[in-house]
Amino acid sequence: MRQLEEKTISSELAFRGNLLKFRIDQVELPDGNQSRREIIEHPGGVTIIPVSPERKIIMVKQYRSAANQVLLELPAGKLDNGENLNDCALRELKEETGYTAGKIRELFTFYTTPGYSTENLHLFLAEDLDYGKQETEDGEFIEVAKIYPERIPDLVLRGKIQDSKTIVGLMVYYQLICQKARLNPFTRT
Amino acid sequence: MRQLEEKTISSELAFRGNLLKFRIDQVELPDGNQSRREIIEHPGGVTIIPVSPERKIIMVKQYRSAANQVLLELPAGKLDNGENLNDCALRELKEETGYTAGKIRELFTFYTTPGYSTENLHLFLAEDLDYGKQETEDGEFIEVAKIYPERIPDLVLRGKIQDSKTIVGLMVYYQLICQKARLNPFTRT
Repeated sequence: MRQLEEKTISSELAFRGNLLKFRIDQVELPDGNQSRREIIEHPGGVTIIPVSPERKIIMVKQYRSAANQVLLELPAGKLDNGENLNDCALRELKEETGYTAGKIRELFTFYTTPGYSTENLHLFLAEDLDYGKQETEDGEFIEVAKIYPERIPDLVLRGKIQDSKTIVGLMVYYQLICQKARLNPFTRT
Repeated sequence: MRQLEEKTISSELAFRGNLLKFRIDQVELPDGNQSRREIIEHPGGVTIIPVSPERKIIMVKQYRSAANQVLLELPAGKLDNGENLNDCALRELKEETGYTAGKIRELFTFYTTPGYSTENLHLFLAEDLDYGKQETEDGEFIEVAKIYPERIPDLVLRGKIQDSKTIVGLMVYYQLICQKARLNPFTRT
């Protein structure tokens, strides 16, 4: 197997924003040549799949400047400095939707866009929900929306869900339902 | 319904990289207050789900500086200036894997991380593959890997696939297989 790894030779902070940093790395390629990598540093965060006692998935609608439109997404948020992952998931769920969760567990982590961003997201499943008051932060305008899991494949395949972390969370939750029902296209009886 | 939209008041280029631009917008919120948005401008691109005549999904392994490791991903790439989407998908497939596709169709588009990046990806399904020589660009080190679709749920749920666009593409392809087999956990007979 050919070695694929790159070695970072130097790293320069090109621009420091309040949330994001723009870093430029000089790397040594597997063949000894050099190349430049533009990297956005992001603190990382959580995404939550909140499932209500009525089987509904609790989602949020918010305006996304970068996409220039209102998107339907799973609740999510950035890790505060030094914050525990579970606490972060429960906090973001409460702030954005008002719900508290009696049961929460991490499914796995992934990179939203590993080609240029360090952003790593931890995906949580939240159950035993109790409704309370939404606690959005200053400058956050979020509307809660609820969908039945039956609608997931159609919403995703018709391009109605446009946010990658939300597609990941919804499709994974749908697969968990399929597995519970013992549905597998490759082992049909 | 409360209005969620923001209005951009001013937009300033904070840093221009070769690939990415760091933009800072001043926006007016729905309540009339102002806020700052840090946005990364990205040219957008394609992701391809290539399925071989042996039912295998053709994937790529490459080192990702931002993730600090080698990741298993679907072939993907950035749109060249003015390039047609289909052409881009066929070009990236050929460059990264060596395969040409007799049949290609776009499934839908999504944002990798709409909270701060304009990156929009077009997801393609590529079939009728023919094998040829890989044509990686200078400085690209990519190894081809193939997986059977049976493995998708396990690989994703165990966190073995860490790239969001790849999880999206694989889970969507698995769902297409389930639909073809008429498997639906909500309409069991």
